[in-house]
Amino acid sequence: MQYDVMTLFPDIIKDYCSYSIMKRGIEKGIISVNTINPRDFTHDKHRRVDDSPYGGSSGMVLMAPPVFEAYESIKRCENSEFIMLTPQGEPYNQKISIELSKKEQIILLCGRYEGFDERIRLGLKPREISLGDYILTGGELGALCIMDSVSRHLEGFLNKEDSSVNDSFSAGLNGMLEHPQYTRPREYRGMKVPDVLLDGNHAEIEKFRHDESILRTRIRRPDLI
Amino acid sequence: MQYDVMTLFPDIIKDYCSYSIMKRGIEKGIISVNTINPRDFTHDKHRRVDDSPYGGSSGMVLMAPPVFEAYESIKRCENSEFIMLTPQGEPYNQKISIELSKKEQIILLCGRYEGFDERIRLGLKPREISLGDYILTGGELGALCIMDSVSRHLEGFLNKEDSSVNDSFSAGLNGMLEHPQYTRPREYRGMKVPDVLLDGNHAEIEKFRHDESILRTRIRRPDLI
Repeated sequence: MQYDVMTLFPDIIKDYCSYSIMKRGIEKGIISVNTINPRDFTHDKHRRVDDSPYGGSSGMVLMAPPVFEAYESIKRCENSEFIMLTPQGEPYNQKISIELSKKEQIILLCGRYEGFDERIRLGLKPREISLGDYILTGGELGALCIMDSVSRHLEGFLNKEDSSVNDSFSAGLNGMLEHPQYTRPREYRGMKVPDVLLDGNHAEIEKFRHDESILRTRIRRPDLI
Repeated sequence: MQYDVMTLFPDIIKDYCSYSIMKRGIEKGIISVNTINPRDFTHDKHRRVDDSPYGGSSGMVLMAPPVFEAYESIKRCENSEFIMLTPQGEPYNQKISIELSKKEQIILLCGRYEGFDERIRLGLKPREISLGDYILTGGELGALCIMDSVSRHLEGFLNKEDSSVNDSFSAGLNGMLEHPQYTRPREYRGMKVPDVLLDGNHAEIEKFRHDESILRTRIRRPDLI
């Protein structure tokens, strides 16, 4: 999977990808991460990428020309998706992450400041995705969330011990929340691991987990059932 | 606002806070960011923080003892909130970010691996928050999203030109999506700025923006109306 991230802060992307599982994915050749800075596609000496909105109001708006030119500098594979991170987009979820993992290339456009010049939407027709109903300073955290969550579906990206089969929202749990987990020690500050998890009866363990998963989802997120 | 972030990857937090608006917020003394690594609270020579789940299954579970001890090392202010990042938590939104911005201190617990030992929930009783219905490798991106979005509400954090009054979901827009924005040039690749934004009639501009905001919300996110 190739990620091309258009951002005014390429180091935010590069830094995150230098740790943990993203780093390993790059080293294994399962993902590659490029950054493209619209500021490198300006033609004035101040390298301006933003300006005040027409019609007035506070905030600065990301200008169309450097974004168009940055976008056009990226070589697009046939099986690629172009995503704009914006709170106005469709809310991101696990289903979209699986769908995106079937692509060969994902191009991610991160905003900063007050927003994008509308002609970026009209002219480049990105798929608009929102991380959730809250406002962030830029699209970089959203791009990283997409890259991290999508990569987890790629073959060989996770080690066997990191398996994602029983994650919350996964098909393994019918889209429900995950059951409680316990590890050593058996007792800690008076709190014990439930006996059923220690008895080695796999059918009972499965039943316990299934029931807990349903119960937890019913209490916390009845909208998922 | 003081952020104390419990994480196995403190550099992910520190890196993001060394750029842009977070960096400026720290320099201005409006926010401070500390990291606490549960690995520093292990007592074995391998500094283990995770182990296999009781009852079997893939994945590793974050152990209770290093998390309890790391948590107890943090000096809590009176007006503080303790948050665990987990896909099983309440979905984060702009309203929660405003509520959190009234605190003096936010302690954020980031998971990694398959999940948390359930006794961390039972014993430390964190407020559980989810970034959205998707699975990430760790809680660090979620912690950064909370820190970024909460900080934006703090007095003096944003410059006047970055004002958040008319952001999507804000009170200024009655919780709706933001209207389209345009900046220079007036025409780009045949696409023109709407005349109403150039005419200087403020009542007309307000009406245009209000109507577009409603229209956009109705089309994209009717659930917000």
